[in-house]
Amino acid sequence: MTEPVLGILGVGVIGGSIGLRARGNGVHVVGADSDPVALDTARNVGAIDAVVEPEMLSRLADIVVIAAHLEPTLREIARLANEPSGPALLLDVASVKVPVAGAAKALSNFVATHPMAGSERSGPSAARPDLFEGCSWAYVPTGDRELDARACRFIESLGGIPVAMTAEEHDRLVALTSHLPQVLALCYARMLRAAGENAEQLCGPVARELLRISGMSAAMWGDILQANAHNIEPELRRLSRELDAAADALAHSGRADG
Amino acid sequence: MTEPVLGILGVGVIGGSIGLRARGNGVHVVGADSDPVALDTARNVGAIDAVVEPEMLSRLADIVVIAAHLEPTLREIARLANEPSGPALLLDVASVKVPVAGAAKALSNFVATHPMAGSERSGPSAARPDLFEGCSWAYVPTGDRELDARACRFIESLGGIPVAMTAEEHDRLVALTSHLPQVLALCYARMLRAAGENAEQLCGPVARELLRISGMSAAMWGDILQANAHNIEPELRRLSRELDAAADALAHSGRADG
Repeated sequence: MTEPVLGILGVGVIGGSIGLRARGNGVHVVGADSDPVALDTARNVGAIDAVVEPEMLSRLADIVVIAAHLEPTLREIARLANEPSGPALLLDVASVKVPVAGAAKALSNFVATHPMAGSERSGPSAARPDLFEGCSWAYVPTGDRELDARACRFIESLGGIPVAMTAEEHDRLVALTSHLPQVLALCYARMLRAAGENAEQLCGPVARELLRISGMSAAMWGDILQANAHNIEPELRRLSRELDAAADALAHSGRADG
Repeated sequence: MTEPVLGILGVGVIGGSIGLRARGNGVHVVGADSDPVALDTARNVGAIDAVVEPEMLSRLADIVVIAAHLEPTLREIARLANEPSGPALLLDVASVKVPVAGAAKALSNFVATHPMAGSERSGPSAARPDLFEGCSWAYVPTGDRELDARACRFIESLGGIPVAMTAEEHDRLVALTSHLPQVLALCYARMLRAAGENAEQLCGPVARELLRISGMSAAMWGDILQANAHNIEPELRRLSRELDAAADALAHSGRADG
């Protein structure tokens, strides 16, 4: 039996962490990336064994992970749809699933997934082998039970917990659990900066967490928010109404008391 | 030189953590609390050396900390204002400072303070000697430089970082840095519960932090929010407007794109 080979397209913090963990499991990992510096770093931190051309990934590897942002993920899926053959399992990790699942319909080996883990830092130098340990990792069942089981085993081998859901349910839920908090963090950080220098010293744990993620890649988030805008917009308006109602209740209690 | 004695009124998570740390520094700690079970627990976890009656605290101790919620803190200050003499330093840790500083005007040994630390758990069993390590600890300078220096030394002995500000500035800033996040957490947790069982599994770090603090004592927060309502209400409305503006921008970008 030959050593299993994992191919990773995109050696950022997610791709790099997948590589680190898989190598720790004894898997041979090959990586591709449009950024040669990232590839060098990925090799230096031990996230990949070797660098290959992107087109070679699906020929060399048993499993290929497209670990890129949404737009390059969609481009890669379109390219792979024209390839004659592919690996046993092909998956992505992008944060919005409806466009990905739609684009990948023609690929019989593809499973759309999304690990609920990340870092406010980017690039392979921020990769960690335990990034996915105990984290939910959503995947969209394909109907091919063997393929789905393969995806689940892969997710579990990285420490993640597979959670099955449709692409629509995923996008609706992450609008609330991940995308809304990101927008909230940006709004809150702006208010805090405007409040003067003592404000940051008085931050509690939630405020600190909001400040931390407000520093995450604006370019990446721009794509995500736009791709899932129809789900995020109503959640933002709902939270806005909730906060107004809380303000009304507070104003009322203050008047009743004073 | 006799061993210094610290008196703590209220052996909850804050009072208990102060006791644990002070005892680790070689201070003799006496505690009082209206709850005998809390006093037993505080002694068992090593947060206090001995139990005394509340009225005895200021006679026995060199430093007395009122480690209670806002309302009992105000009651204790009113009671102490009628005592003939007191300890060298008397301080509180309540989350709102204007009512406290106002009530304590007649007490020449009093410094109003607020450690920016806490726990979603309550009671002495949640106490930790390192709870204040590296945390900002706000205090309201009294104009008596020796008294203020004594308060700063005490804060530093517990691992805290003294941050001077007026009571008004404190209440205005914590409305944004601590009270607004608490209201936000309650609103957000409600939305998340309504979204179904898969939602919680997809929570990112901010969502998890909001859920965690949404479980904090409702009774304590009710008092705090009401006492500082005039500062919190405008911050809630400001954040609500920011979220609406973000929703507008998202709706616009979605339309422009699609």
